[in-house]
Amino acid sequence: MQLLLGGSCRQLVMATAASLCRRAHGQAGEAGVPKMLWKLGRLNHIAIATPDLKKSTALYRDVLGAEVSEPQALPEHGVRTVFINLGNTKLELLHPLGNDSPITNFLKKHPSGGMHHICIEVDNIEEAVADLQRRQVRCLTERPRTGAHGKPVVFLHPKDCAGVLVELEEA
Amino acid sequence: MQLLLGGSCRQLVMATAASLCRRAHGQAGEAGVPKMLWKLGRLNHIAIATPDLKKSTALYRDVLGAEVSEPQALPEHGVRTVFINLGNTKLELLHPLGNDSPITNFLKKHPSGGMHHICIEVDNIEEAVADLQRRQVRCLTERPRTGAHGKPVVFLHPKDCAGVLVELEEA
Repeated sequence: MQLLLGGSCRQLVMATAASLCRRAHGQAGEAGVPKMLWKLGRLNHIAIATPDLKKSTALYRDVLGAEVSEPQALPEHGVRTVFINLGNTKLELLHPLGNDSPITNFLKKHPSGGMHHICIEVDNIEEAVADLQRRQVRCLTERPRTGAHGKPVVFLHPKDCAGVLVELEEA
Repeated sequence: MQLLLGGSCRQLVMATAASLCRRAHGQAGEAGVPKMLWKLGRLNHIAIATPDLKKSTALYRDVLGAEVSEPQALPEHGVRTVFINLGNTKLELLHPLGNDSPITNFLKKHPSGGMHHICIEVDNIEEAVADLQRRQVRCLTERPRTGAHGKPVVFLHPKDCAGVLVELEEA
């Protein structure tokens, strides 16, 4: 259900949908229950923090034979990235860039590197955030922000997601 | 290139291929360089260890709206599993089963749960293991074993894979 409505009407629809969200997700397709206003999609990538970007790239390219991208510096996000193409999804190698990288502390705790987060696509991130907040799933920012790939993203609190840092990205 | 050869001939081909592995993987398709005897495939799943299987299943099914499987007990592997279908790949929730579960220690170190391993498909696991051992990528077992889903698998040492426990599974 795609909604192209004015402000007050849209709010009414959202409020009605919100009250039915729990049932709608649990019993999708039930007669009389509107569908959710957003939908979870495919796994976009698994982010892996590494202390040695060259060595990790060489492992996937030269030893495992995967297709890898050129390194890309994203100074505004404090990371240098390399993507590993696995056909159905990607691994994203992350290495700290600059003095204020979000990866630095992770690598202090995990000196050999490790899985940092998973990123799952959604079709409407604003609706997803509003819905998750109503359901007491904590988002790390109140509103979506522009992520490393230029799309709106939000991170969910690992304590609410089986210890996993989950990024939602609008596809 | 699929090989259906007798013992000594096969060994000769493997030895020749091994000496060219580094070039072959780095420069796939170059004239005169044989292709690898095995190939990396798609991401099969991300395994997430959780201290509360019901709660984690409910998060993905009822809050995020994903399609989830029924729980499955795999006593010979010491785990109870639930699969989350993301369309292009799966998450595999893991919970300890029995007194000798491989997940118990992980959850002691990560009481909220967390990402345990990633599983990538290969087309020929025997060739993959032989090749990786030649390249000093450590496998946790000398030979492939039958994994939780009835297929031959091997785990690679996290210290050789950017801190990530990587499972290879013959597709």
